[in-house]
Amino acid sequence: MEENTIEVQQHDNQWGPNVWTHLSTVRQRSPLIQCITNFVSMDLMANTLLSAGASPAMIHSLEEIPDFTPHAHALCINVGTLTADWLPAMKSAAELANRLAKPWVLDPVAAGASSFRLEACLELVGLKPTVIRGNGSEIIALSKASVGLTKGVDSSHESSDAVEAATSLAQARGCIVAVSGAVDIITDGQRVGGAQNGVAMMQKITATGCSVTALIAAFVAIDPLHAFEATASALSIFGIAGEIGMGMAKGPASLRMHLIDSLYGLDQATVLHRVNIISLP
Amino acid sequence: MEENTIEVQQHDNQWGPNVWTHLSTVRQRSPLIQCITNFVSMDLMANTLLSAGASPAMIHSLEEIPDFTPHAHALCINVGTLTADWLPAMKSAAELANRLAKPWVLDPVAAGASSFRLEACLELVGLKPTVIRGNGSEIIALSKASVGLTKGVDSSHESSDAVEAATSLAQARGCIVAVSGAVDIITDGQRVGGAQNGVAMMQKITATGCSVTALIAAFVAIDPLHAFEATASALSIFGIAGEIGMGMAKGPASLRMHLIDSLYGLDQATVLHRVNIISLP
Amino acid sequence: MEENTIEVQQHDNQWGPNVWTHLSTVRQRSPLIQCITNFVSMDLMANTLLSAGASPAMIHSLEEIPDFTPHAHALCINVGTLTADWLPAMKSAAELANRLAKPWVLDPVAAGASSFRLEACLELVGLKPTVIRGNGSEIIALSKASVGLTKGVDSSHESSDAVEAATSLAQARGCIVAVSGAVDIITDGQRVGGAQNGVAMMQKITATGCSVTALIAAFVAIDPLHAFEATASALSIFGIAGEIGMGMAKGPASLRMHLIDSLYGLDQATVLHRVNIISLP
Repeated sequence: MEENTIEVQQHDNQWGPNVWTHLSTVRQRSPLIQCITNFVSMDLMANTLLSAGASPAMIHSLEEIPDFTPHAHALCINVGTLTADWLPAMKSAAELANRLAKPWVLDPVAAGASSFRLEACLELVGLKPTVIRGNGSEIIALSKASVGLTKGVDSSHESSDAVEAATSLAQARGCIVAVSGAVDIITDGQRVGGAQNGVAMMQKITATGCSVTALIAAFVAIDPLHAFEATASALSIFGIAGEIGMGMAKGPASLRMHLIDSLYGLDQATVLHRVNIISLP
Repeated sequence: MEENTIEVQQHDNQWGPNVWTHLSTVRQRSPLIQCITNFVSMDLMANTLLSAGASPAMIHSLEEIPDFTPHAHALCINVGTLTADWLPAMKSAAELANRLAKPWVLDPVAAGASSFRLEACLELVGLKPTVIRGNGSEIIALSKASVGLTKGVDSSHESSDAVEAATSLAQARGCIVAVSGAVDIITDGQRVGGAQNGVAMMQKITATGCSVTALIAAFVAIDPLHAFEATASALSIFGIAGEIGMGMAKGPASLRMHLIDSLYGLDQATVLHRVNIISLP
Repeated sequence: MEENTIEVQQHDNQWGPNVWTHLSTVRQRSPLIQCITNFVSMDLMANTLLSAGASPAMIHSLEEIPDFTPHAHALCINVGTLTADWLPAMKSAAELANRLAKPWVLDPVAAGASSFRLEACLELVGLKPTVIRGNGSEIIALSKASVGLTKGVDSSHESSDAVEAATSLAQARGCIVAVSGAVDIITDGQRVGGAQNGVAMMQKITATGCSVTALIAAFVAIDPLHAFEATASALSIFGIAGEIGMGMAKGPASLRMHLIDSLYGLDQATVLHRVNIISLP
């Protein structure tokens, strides 16, 4: 694993250089990211990884996991269009990633939409993801079911509730938890960071959440010992690409295009200028 | 159901205001639309719904229907890439929608392409869709098989044949039938309307038909007691977005982008100016 | 079959007119191309076929093959997101295409990624594809497993290795083999052609390889007796569309859009001016 480690400064005022180091390392190493994901997101997710310099592999067949997963540098599992027949491959890949000490990232899409989905997510959380990324509702649903939050969580899922749910989940499971929102929250259970890049219209494009989860997998792949920092970097980079894309967009579809173009073209000066990550109390 | 009803004028010269009311109500209420659809269309369909202000949920697992479908405001079922293992979820969701008096919309893609597909469509038609939308060939194939049209239908599927097939199907099944074409036809079995918005190049983009069916589901979701009007409105709105997009497009791929951007940005003046819906004799 | 034959000159200096004849014939006849492909590529593949003037049908249900495949003019099979339950339909469709003397094209995506995938590809190769198109690694893996190449192939998969692997495979299987790369290679086991159109950034867009395979199917559909020439034409046309698109692109996502727009709009003068196909020794 040590050969995968890169030198990243962890002081707040160093976020700009850290983020740039993460992106440029992904471009240089082109980590192979196995994605077992939903049907809606496959296209944008693969293009997001390609534009960031990573190498996507959308391989979800149970039969292929013993041969293929050992070659991947990280694994991304997303339950967006889950059916029962997909779950064994997800679990098998996650177990193998664990055994091989490879990082893997879970996107618990719509975790609270059904008991089937929530149970599947809980089984996956039990397989020790390196990072879990969702929106506020998803993380609250998962934390409640996983940690047994007893305090009532109101239906508006205010930011403070999401922070509490994320922190509890991160502590209980020993992983990084990220919550997307107006400010993206990242926590390892102790530290809480806020990535403030991005634009609201990104929520009007399907699969942007799924895609940033895959980007997190790529960033953690090249810096597995600093998963907190790598996660914050990926969220910030994707948000910056959205900000630049928004300057050219006339609506959600052109934003999607410009976002990917911008991600591909990001340079150091732009990244250093725009990174906006803070420590939260 | 009454709480879902909105005041819509039904006089022909009121189509402009009606259409605008439908769109602005979708934007305001953001109805949750469950889509059980084909693999090709998932991305464009979800983005169409998001751009119109609705909330898409691509959930097709049989296990999730009892938990999730009751929360949806309408259901969209599309058989484009049907396999035998998807049919139980489609039927289960349609049955539940019926039982809960939720509107649901059927897109019988390529209904006549195989006996397997035609039989599946007939089973779904038997589950009382609120609206069926297809192209001329699909509606003729379905009407022939469902109603037992005895009159020969010529292979060119002229507009008049499609109108007859649609009217028969609507009468026999007590639903709205819409036929996409140079002029989109909408009928409840008695009235026949024609939505004349749209541009020919939209047929060169995959999944535009599927996506407008999902848009119909969103419009019917917010006005279930006027499914005829809501269907005409959705067809007109999608066509208007295509017309505006065409003004900026250089080919099918840029038309697709501009169409979605335009759908997102449509304002009242543009809608009132462009709506072109007529009564057909 | 003779009715499907078009007059194509086969002299090298005639490539421009040949390529244009192929494209204009596809536009005129709009061949129906059945695609059994991966989830990632369905959208771009369908849009590529539509923009070239062909008619895509993404139909992969085993139950539908006896009814539908006889109506298709060519078949495209792609194993990109293969699972065991998809293989019977692929084999059934390929067998039926063979029996009916319809051309079919195989895309052995990531053939070497697992033994499951390689064995599936070998089974499909045994069903006599008209054309096999892959990248260098895929063709080398397939040729090695299929023909039993004994000469060591180095891991860099240099162009010369790929040519040798492609030629061996073409000879052993009596098919056309195409290898995408900086120069696309086409061989029937005797002749070796090189299509030099295209731009490097096309590799940063997911599913471009899959899509050009489908385009090959459309071109072979209208000229099955000259599969070598039709394959070279399709590769050249897709590359030209990429070259023109690149002139307007700011990154991979806008290139994807402009590529499809350009494919739709290609005119004779542009094709004649840009075609760059050579004979290789």
